[in-house]
Amino acid sequence: MNIKDFTCEQWMTQYERKARYNMTDTSFEALRLEEFLESDAFDGNLVLDYGEIDGAKEFKEQVEKLYSKPNRAITSVHGAVQGNEHVMMSLLESGDHVIAFTPGYQQFYDLPSSIGCLVSLLPYEEDNGWKLPLEKIEKAIGDKTKMIVLASPSNPTGASVSYEEWIALIDLCKDKGIYILCDEVYRGLDGKKVPSISDLYELGIVTGSLSKVYGLPGLRLGWIRANKKIIDLINVRRDYTMISTGPLIDHLGSVALKKKEGILARNRTLLKTNLAFLKGWLAENPHFSGQFFEEAPVAFLHYDFDIDSKTLSLALLKECGVFFVPGSCFGYEGYLRLGLGRDPISFQKGLTQCSQWIEARLKKI
Amino acid sequence: MNIKDFTCEQWMTQYERKARYNMTDTSFEALRLEEFLESDAFDGNLVLDYGEIDGAKEFKEQVEKLYSKPNRAITSVHGAVQGNEHVMMSLLESGDHVIAFTPGYQQFYDLPSSIGCLVSLLPYEEDNGWKLPLEKIEKAIGDKTKMIVLASPSNPTGASVSYEEWIALIDLCKDKGIYILCDEVYRGLDGKKVPSISDLYELGIVTGSLSKVYGLPGLRLGWIRANKKIIDLINVRRDYTMISTGPLIDHLGSVALKKKEGILARNRTLLKTNLAFLKGWLAENPHFSGQFFEEAPVAFLHYDFDIDSKTLSLALLKECGVFFVPGSCFGYEGYLRLGLGRDPISFQKGLTQCSQWIEARLKKI
Repeated sequence: MNIKDFTCEQWMTQYERKARYNMTDTSFEALRLEEFLESDAFDGNLVLDYGEIDGAKEFKEQVEKLYSKPNRAITSVHGAVQGNEHVMMSLLESGDHVIAFTPGYQQFYDLPSSIGCLVSLLPYEEDNGWKLPLEKIEKAIGDKTKMIVLASPSNPTGASVSYEEWIALIDLCKDKGIYILCDEVYRGLDGKKVPSISDLYELGIVTGSLSKVYGLPGLRLGWIRANKKIIDLINVRRDYTMISTGPLIDHLGSVALKKKEGILARNRTLLKTNLAFLKGWLAENPHFSGQFFEEAPVAFLHYDFDIDSKTLSLALLKECGVFFVPGSCFGYEGYLRLGLGRDPISFQKGLTQCSQWIEARLKKI
Repeated sequence: MNIKDFTCEQWMTQYERKARYNMTDTSFEALRLEEFLESDAFDGNLVLDYGEIDGAKEFKEQVEKLYSKPNRAITSVHGAVQGNEHVMMSLLESGDHVIAFTPGYQQFYDLPSSIGCLVSLLPYEEDNGWKLPLEKIEKAIGDKTKMIVLASPSNPTGASVSYEEWIALIDLCKDKGIYILCDEVYRGLDGKKVPSISDLYELGIVTGSLSKVYGLPGLRLGWIRANKKIIDLINVRRDYTMISTGPLIDHLGSVALKKKEGILARNRTLLKTNLAFLKGWLAENPHFSGQFFEEAPVAFLHYDFDIDSKTLSLALLKECGVFFVPGSCFGYEGYLRLGLGRDPISFQKGLTQCSQWIEARLKKI
């Protein structure tokens, strides 16, 4: 199957472990095992069989608490990325029209392209706060439009879709039976403040995981939530790709979600601390600018000097150990993807190193 | 994407938890967490970040020890089923010709069919010891043949491909550049006794996992092993479907493989004990027969009385709590899939219940 290189993921794989200051990881600082297990020692009697095939009941009950509207079904997956794959591969066919957005997660447009879907890639605009381009969507929708794929909050912009925007989008989709797949892996930092499309729309499908706002990417545990008919359909293909997520991970995931208030409070503090430092740093570094949001630990940082983003990122990594994903991985020049959820001391040192390097470099030009 | 119901998996999901005597699970009796961790308490300091993207080095080093020929590459996956999916979805295109076998694992033929491959499904024959039908393969190979997909040892037959058979098959494939994908999830009970195609053929690709002969399906950890060029290609698509298997599972997997001798000795004893009882039971129950192998905990049990396999399986489950996957899930009548790696007491009680029920039932007919 012909599929393009996933540039952002390949960049991360190639360079992340060389970083001294990781300024671009979009997860919150990952928790250590004992940080969330605390006194809940592992149950040595846990039998490592396949467990409950579509996810442990105790885990799914905890997931359900993250949403408002009941009567939705859930199936477990190894991360939201696998969830997105399952949704798209189960519901899309060659020839279907899909609408996705840029800058965005490459999976949303190049996975459907790889199976012969026609994809309209609509631009978010920074001047408009990276908001959903509703007028462009209305124009792009056609008879063959089967699915709209997006993230809220979005990677790399951090912007969320508001309740009013969802209602307007649903209005464009519902009569035509268009699915809305929303990767909500960055949702939940403030509980239910960012609305979930699965609470609002019968054909709304969401994916989520413990990897970003819960700081537990190492569990590789996520979910798909939608109406039962859709989940049943997804589970047909899921049998060909996995059996279950397994009882150990399902159990650890439910422990983490039971303790989510503590984890989220820690992570909100990390984000606020980093945003406060960033604000001061931006005031002193007018070559940088951006839209920053309190809902998600990710932003698309703009710079206005003349170095392409790949060269800049490689130089910063090599010369200062400061690691960014370049905007070019999202098809944009003049941007760096900035993670806002990592350790504040490292964040501050990294930004300081970055601005010192830029200043020295700009003087030379 | 149009894909058929995975009948065996759906049967397991629907009925397995109702079983009192599970006679059909093809894993060895699953280990409890403390059975293989022993004094190696979990490392509470383990950071739950994404870990090494294509699998932890320590885990891949342990996997490599299961094979003979060096210079192969490995990437980690969540079980062999996901490994098979990755191999087929990465290397196959609509229009490619694929050769698979029956009775066999439905994924091997219905996943490629779902993406538009033309599949030749060749029968294994019980009278021939369920051996590889080399003459039929030779006739089936054509200009568009891209891949041969099989399992060794096989599910549900338990038969393995011998060294000589592999050499003969490679001889048919190598000049035409045909990939051989072999699911070797049932390999390893006797170390390297069952040969691995990845040790014998440049275009041989194998998948394996901890789910069957190692008794740890709950870890959901497996691997793909092939030459580096193939693994690099698979990793391109893998970025769209998962990030990593995660540091916790990778670590537990490497602990289990370091202790494999103890686990395998336990499991060989389970299999031998069950096979010995089965031999006696078959002597007393001439309506049943089969081919049984010491390499794998699975067999396709034949019966010669006139009840269809689904009706028989449902009646045995309902009336005695004895659980089988019916032969019909593999497209065969007059068979039940028999797991040979479970607790011997349950195995013996289950078979006894089964024969008592059959006897009473046959008298009524």
